[in-house]
This record gives sequence, C-alpha cells and structure tokens, in this order.
Amino acid sequence: MLPIIAIAGPSDSGKTTLVEKLVRALRRKGYAIGVLKHTHARIKFDRAGTDTDRFRKAGAVLSAITDDATLARFSMVSGTPPRNLINALAKDVDLLIVEGYKREALPKLLFTDHLDRVDFKGIVATYGKRGMGNGELPHFKPREIGTMARWLERSFIIPGRKAGAVRVSIDGIDLPMKPFVADILREANRGLLKSLKGGRGRRVQISIDFGRKI
Amino acid sequence: MLPIIAIAGPSDSGKTTLVEKLVRALRRKGYAIGVLKHTHARIKFDRAGTDTDRFRKAGAVLSAITDDATLARFSMVSGTPPRNLINALAKDVDLLIVEGYKREALPKLLFTDHLDRVDFKGIVATYGKRGMGNGELPHFKPREIGTMARWLERSFIIPGRKAGAVRVSIDGIDLPMKPFVADILREANRGLLKSLKGGRGRRVQISIDFGRKI
Repeated sequence: MLPIIAIAGPSDSGKTTLVEKLVRALRRKGYAIGVLKHTHARIKFDRAGTDTDRFRKAGAVLSAITDDATLARFSMVSGTPPRNLINALAKDVDLLIVEGYKREALPKLLFTDHLDRVDFKGIVATYGKRGMGNGELPHFKPREIGTMARWLERSFIIPGRKAGAVRVSIDGIDLPMKPFVADILREANRGLLKSLKGGRGRRVQISIDFGRKI
Repeated sequence: MLPIIAIAGPSDSGKTTLVEKLVRALRRKGYAIGVLKHTHARIKFDRAGTDTDRFRKAGAVLSAITDDATLARFSMVSGTPPRNLINALAKDVDLLIVEGYKREALPKLLFTDHLDRVDFKGIVATYGKRGMGNGELPHFKPREIGTMARWLERSFIIPGRKAGAVRVSIDGIDLPMKPFVADILREANRGLLKSLKGGRGRRVQISIDFGRKI
C-alpha cells in the first residue's frame, strides 16, 4: 500500500489549517510530505498570456516552468481516474495528504465538529472536540498535532517505507505483492542490472511498455 | 535516449512562439508533447495565501491542486540537477521541448537570427532567415513548421518510442542499454509478473529502492 491519508470533513471546518500543521510537524521529523487538494471550483492555474498557459492552450499535455527553486507543472488530466493521479503523486513522497475526494476509497481522517451525518467510507481516525462515540477508532483532540504526526508516522509512513522497497504499478494501478514476490523481483533485477555499465546505484526505476497486455 | 529537444537562441527571438507552433503541429499528429521552460527570473508560482502556497510554505516537497481537468503541481527542486528534472519530465511524454538551460548537454535547435556568436554545445539543427554557413546541419526557414515537426518526429519521437519499450533509470540517470539487454529485462519481468494476480497489463513501472548502492 502507498502511504496516503485523506482529510475529510465539512467545508470551512479548518481542514487546510490542519494539513498545514501536519506537514510542518512531519517535515520536522525529516519526511518528504506531499499534499493534493481536490476542488470542485474551476481554478485559474496560471494567468492568461503566461508562457505555461500558452503551451497548454497549444495542446501540450505537460507544461512546466522552473526557476531552479520550484518546479511548477501543469498537466491535463481529464479522464484520468483520481486514484491513478493520487498513486502517481504518492510515489514521490513519504506521505501524501489528500484534501477532498471524499468519495474515493482512501483511508480517511474525519473532522467530527459541525458534522451532522457521516457518509464517508474508510474512516481510520477522527479529529475534533468530541469523538465518534464507540471509541473503536483513534481520536485526536484539537492541538494534539504531535500525537497525530506520530500516529501517521507509525501507521502510514514507516509501513509504507518498508513495503516501498519494491513497488510495481501496472497501467497506473498499484500491484499488491507478497514480500517473497517483492524479494524475487528485486533480486532478479539486481542480478540483471549490476553487471551493466552504469547499472549500479540505489534507486532504480524500470518502465516497460509491452505494446499490448501481457 | 529520451526524446528531448532544446530550443536555444537570443532573448526575444521568438522562441516561445516557435515552441507553441511546434506543440500545435505535433499535437495534430497525435503525440503527447511536454514543454519545460527554464527562467532566471524568480517567478511567482501561485499567489500568496492560496492553499498550495500555504502547503509549500509549511514545508511540503510537493503541493498540488486539481479540478479534474488540470493538475497543477508545485515542487521544491533546489539542488536537483537540471538533467534529472528534464529526464523525469521526458518520461511521461513522446517529446519534451525545453526552452532555456543553454548550458545543459541537450540536443539543441538554434535560432540563427540576431545571433552574434554561438557558444552553445550540441546543436543538431538551425532555424532562422539564414543558415549557419557550411550546410552540415538541417536548416529550417521561418514558416517551415510542418517540415520541422516531421523532422522532430523522425529524429526524436519515433526513435524514442522504439527505445522506450524498456527504460531504466538509476538514481535519476537514464541507463543506456543495448537492445538485447532491454529484451532480457523485459522478458524476465514479464515472466515474473504475468503469473501474479493483477499482474497482467500493458505499461509496467517497477520501482526498487535497494537501500544502498548495488
């Protein structure tokens, strides 16, 4: 499983502020954190007339600009299943925090304040002034940011790192693997690569396009 | 080799307009084109106070927002070698057109108009009212966009697609491979994956973190 947590709850409940605080707390622990926000509003990504806007309007599937400090990438994603987007972003970070996408099957941290009914699936913990009653799930009170950060580390980041030693995605979908299968894939590819000139290193990415389904 | 072409030439020579036209011409041929612009100016990526700006300032290495049509990704890249950035972007497209980065070892299309001296390396073709003299390199005159698009297709996109059936990068650097090595890697991984549940598909991505150099 890729390390992904979604923050779910009513509008204006302070989700964005909580995400900011979690990013700051996990960053201090040395983790690389990513955030993806999904919005129903149509957003202006770059102003009309900028170069990236001109490239996109000309039909570029990817239009990017960098000043060596930040890279801004604009890509057209109409028709891409949200789960594929989320998985692709999660691959580059230790934890991806998702805001929005409440209908997706993602593990969710639920805001309980100002909530009249719960129609989200996949709730793994709650956050707010009061818990959700039965006490089965971990509950965090406001200001327990450090405790939440440690829980995210233990439940998502560390397991994700172990499982992440070998990751395979097929047509954009993550392939679940038993540890011995991951071992075979890792060792077979290590054997094939290490004798090649330039084939020695730590992080290896192999992309194969079989042309048709295998 | 990944399919990458850089557009080099004096400032205000019309490089951005040429890129726009090439994107449009290659898009019509059905190719997925990416553009990366490198700028020395410090650019404002998103306005202060937007959510993506807040996430970045909190220390997120990746801050993204999507409205289902476009995905905007902002990532911190200080210290990342330009070549790693360029290679990573080129992996997702049929051709990556790069504007700027004139010091990088990239194949370059050179604007010859208003050019007093040439200090670029890696020039593979020229563009402008006049050629560069000796006629060794292909030269394109203004308005020969269709001819240039066909040349890019033949010289970069089609060879890139063939070579792209198997691509390996190690610590962000592309690994050059002889065809028989690519065949072995493809067939070994096909054999390992096809017996797994969910292991059948067309495009396979394998990421391995060996923990230390192999």
